Amino acid sequence: MKILGIDPGTSRIGYGLISDKPLKLIDYGVIEIKDKTNQKFLVLSEKLGKLINKFKPEVAAVEKIYFAKNQKTAIEVAQARGIIILSFLKKKIPIYEYTPQEVKLAVTNYGLADKKAVAKLVKQLLGINELKGYDDASDALAIAITAANYQKLVRD
Amino acid sequence: MKILGIDPGTSRIGYGLISDKPLKLIDYGVIEIKDKTNQKFLVLSEKLGKLINKFKPEVAAVEKIYFAKNQKTAIEVAQARGIIILSFLKKKIPIYEYTPQEVKLAVTNYGLADKKAVAKLVKQLLGINELKGYDDASDALAIAITAANYQKLVRD
Repeated sequence: MKILGIDPGTSRIGYGLISDKPLKLIDYGVIEIKDKTNQKFLVLSEKLGKLINKFKPEVAAVEKIYFAKNQKTAIEVAQARGIIILSFLKKKIPIYEYTPQEVKLAVTNYGLADKKAVAKLVKQLLGINELKGYDDASDALAIAITAANYQKLVRD
Repeated sequence: MKILGIDPGTSRIGYGLISDKPLKLIDYGVIEIKDKTNQKFLVLSEKLGKLINKFKPEVAAVEKIYFAKNQKTAIEVAQARGIIILSFLKKKIPIYEYTPQEVKLAVTNYGLADKKAVAKLVKQLLGINELKGYDDASDALAIAITAANYQKLVRD
């Protein structure tokens, strides 16, 4: 099954595509959006729509927005996240949602792991040596792995 | 010019359509969404899309989300607001955005006015006796009136 993980953001939206059984990396990267005006939402909708059409994921995994120190940023990211969720709904792709803590726990067995530890485990689990420096993509892959693990647990 | 004001929300999204020069009420109401799952976003997108096609507004006015006491609610409303903004962008309708304070100031000349005072002034300005009990619609009309006033100021 193909799982597309998404790490929501405003200017950089990480994505990671994996297959489960066995866990395998297919692709990863970052949707970059330079627009600072509302136009950025239209760009996000178009770029993500193209990605979904290209990858044809069977499941989407999107990180939940957690209570943020910077509420202005949280509101900005939440607006973008609404558009991300809508993009998958329109294609009738089931959406799984996890908090950052659930993702860390699923990937590293430790809910408070830092980004570096998550990236290290993501590479181990996917059997790759390098992730081209993108934190956002590493996070997106971690979210996709979380969906794979949760589904496995449910099916076991 | 036809201005459609929108008061963003999750289960009740107020809308108010006016024309400026002279200021005149055309229609108002509430988009009600009963779904509590992600499906609500798809329903919002579809219902608002139909409303835009029906009313053909030339300008949209959407309230900004302010720093909320309840951050969980703010994030929920922000996700819906992203979809509202996207709906107007897709139809190439210009979007004006105002904070609650700007709306209160534009309608009542007092930035801290309460909902009752705003509703009273909205009725006076539009020359109507009654607004069928909807707070959300009254707020949406206030937002539309704000856009009409700001544009007038800009043109004067």
